[in-house]
Amino acid sequence: MKRTSRDIRTANRYEVLRQIIAESPTSRQELAAATGLSLATVATLVGELLDLGMLTEVGFEDSAGGRPRGLVAVNASGGALIGVDIAETYVRVELFDLALNVLARADEDMRPGESRPVQVVGHVATAVGSVVAQAGVEGARVLGVGVSVPGQVDRATGIAEYAPNWDWHDVPLLDLLAEHISYPLYLDNPLRACAVAELWFGAARGRGNAVVVNLGTGVGAGLAFGGGLHRGVSNSAGEWGHTTLVLDGRLCHCGNHGCVETYVGAPGIMQNLRELSPRSPLHHPEDQTATIDALARGVAAQDPVAVKVVRDTARYLGAGIADLVNLLNPEVVVLSSWVAAALGEPLLEEVREAVARHALKRPLAATEIVLSPIPTDPVCLGAATFALEGALSSVTQKSNQRPNRRTWSRQ
Amino acid sequence: MKRTSRDIRTANRYEVLRQIIAESPTSRQELAAATGLSLATVATLVGELLDLGMLTEVGFEDSAGGRPRGLVAVNASGGALIGVDIAETYVRVELFDLALNVLARADEDMRPGESRPVQVVGHVATAVGSVVAQAGVEGARVLGVGVSVPGQVDRATGIAEYAPNWDWHDVPLLDLLAEHISYPLYLDNPLRACAVAELWFGAARGRGNAVVVNLGTGVGAGLAFGGGLHRGVSNSAGEWGHTTLVLDGRLCHCGNHGCVETYVGAPGIMQNLRELSPRSPLHHPEDQTATIDALARGVAAQDPVAVKVVRDTARYLGAGIADLVNLLNPEVVVLSSWVAAALGEPLLEEVREAVARHALKRPLAATEIVLSPIPTDPVCLGAATFALEGALSSVTQKSNQRPNRRTWSRQ
Repeated sequence: MKRTSRDIRTANRYEVLRQIIAESPTSRQELAAATGLSLATVATLVGELLDLGMLTEVGFEDSAGGRPRGLVAVNASGGALIGVDIAETYVRVELFDLALNVLARADEDMRPGESRPVQVVGHVATAVGSVVAQAGVEGARVLGVGVSVPGQVDRATGIAEYAPNWDWHDVPLLDLLAEHISYPLYLDNPLRACAVAELWFGAARGRGNAVVVNLGTGVGAGLAFGGGLHRGVSNSAGEWGHTTLVLDGRLCHCGNHGCVETYVGAPGIMQNLRELSPRSPLHHPEDQTATIDALARGVAAQDPVAVKVVRDTARYLGAGIADLVNLLNPEVVVLSSWVAAALGEPLLEEVREAVARHALKRPLAATEIVLSPIPTDPVCLGAATFALEGALSSVTQKSNQRPNRRTWSRQ
Repeated sequence: MKRTSRDIRTANRYEVLRQIIAESPTSRQELAAATGLSLATVATLVGELLDLGMLTEVGFEDSAGGRPRGLVAVNASGGALIGVDIAETYVRVELFDLALNVLARADEDMRPGESRPVQVVGHVATAVGSVVAQAGVEGARVLGVGVSVPGQVDRATGIAEYAPNWDWHDVPLLDLLAEHISYPLYLDNPLRACAVAELWFGAARGRGNAVVVNLGTGVGAGLAFGGGLHRGVSNSAGEWGHTTLVLDGRLCHCGNHGCVETYVGAPGIMQNLRELSPRSPLHHPEDQTATIDALARGVAAQDPVAVKVVRDTARYLGAGIADLVNLLNPEVVVLSSWVAAALGEPLLEEVREAVARHALKRPLAATEIVLSPIPTDPVCLGAATFALEGALSSVTQKSNQRPNRRTWSRQ
């Protein structure tokens, strides 16, 4: 688990590219100032990225009196990245340019009972084919496909080890996908996809310590410390949804009782509603999205049941987030994923109040709690970012082996 | 919060010294292999530490065929370090040589009601004077005094911001101590002292991801990620004792309900005993140490009440530690501090079983749960380590300012 020189070089390359994507065009001098790296290091990294066709020189800016500074920008058309968000109720696939702009999108609904691996793989393959066709991108330009699947995954082997909502065990997902998709594939889960999306493009950018709370069907917390993802020793960090909030509380599908997820995941929120008002018309049995949307509309219309359900949910969520604040002392807590997006500001306000009631004063004062500012699907964006990181890192390996570094860049 | 080149240099210096302290004598080549740093970097860092008098050359080893390799070792007598463990019921001070061997120790008991800052400072000053006299160390050789005080501290200002067990608020502890103690002072808390002790000398050494669970009057979790302490954005990370285990459970002195600490801190364990068997002779009201010791003896004698209290406590502790395992996916969880030391193996076994019942399979499989292997007071050791880190880092600052780097070494 030591940080080798190569880890540091890779982290620095991410950091520089991240900064350029956030602010293009920019100069090497500005990059050095923004990243804390030396100008020499920045110049080397920028040179590599130019060689790879990921950046492009875009002219010069005047520096008062001194030599004009060369400006670089992301070469948006230098390649395409695909992000796949496999959720419990849908598959969404987006195709991005190198500046991480969405060029095409495809959605596939998944009904309950359609969750066998072969069915899911079929949906993904169809949607990937669709976005490549829509965007009119040559296959050779696709640098990689990042795939996010709920639960615990082994990145190295591409195996979905455990997806509790589907009761998947040790599904060789990347092998199954590789039968249909010929681009390089990278597997991870939505917690880390959302976290890396915030780190590169959202509320965690430039923050050393961030927690990205993922509120969907499942619940978790993507952790970013020291500017990078905290994966844990076996890539399963972030299972906050399966931490105990109520000892001996509600039974969770993980086998434990009182897990955070059973109170604030979409099915947990539906149970909060059922317990408060069993016959409420807000309730759409078997349809999480419809129920959450109904709650959001209900809160907007000041429906007392909807307001109370969101308040109760925020009380659980606030106690759980206060635990993260007390334990990790983050600079920012970001509420992400579809439930957070649907319930929005009213949920955020209640959560802030509940956290303030539970958290210790010192870490509370240092933490900001915000909704994700990412306007598109953060899971697709994060998954595509994993593909970008994967491409950057496989290039390093190749460039160490042979003199020609342009192995995959602009054909 | 960015990692600058200087942060990296300081971390590398710690890493090299840590490795040498663990295995002396050693060669630069072995250090490079053990730390993952380049031989050139190791040679530079070793040169600096030799210049400072912290290391010494101790001869050569034969390397099959090649040039003989120079061996270096810690120069144990190159300076002295003092660690101060201010606990709720006692003050303990230890003086160490540079290899972190204990040369002298002084203990002061603190009775309930003796916890005003001026009283505590008096105890510390007396004990520090005592260890310096006992060890016969010249004052100029004392490189620093690390002070651990429970609760939340501001390291930069030396202020104990909040010590819940004493109801201290914003006590300028280092200023008060500086009126009696002329050595450089470094403030932190027992969570981080125990964690840094494990990182340098104990079960977390060489582990990228470790959680050091501190079981005393107060409870917390020192976090080490990527080989360094995770302090959080305002140095208050680790307040696991004040995370919710039982929503709306026992009232905690922090104002919240159901905090982990109210079930597994020494007073919480006493309450577990009272609730199970109000008239048990194991109970020593007002004396935490005596009660915990009585429980330890009771378990050894298979007293059913003692066994049940430890099992109940382990059940709470196991649920809480499973939360840490699920959230952080650590390589090792270390049980540290005086309650863990007193209850020892019987507690550990029950905790392992309870964690296995609560944690997810994947992170559980990757985690080892152990008792701290540190044979002395880990808080004193960790506090002294902070003084060592402080001395190393202040030297860097000085050496950047003037050519003579030997500013504090061997007078």
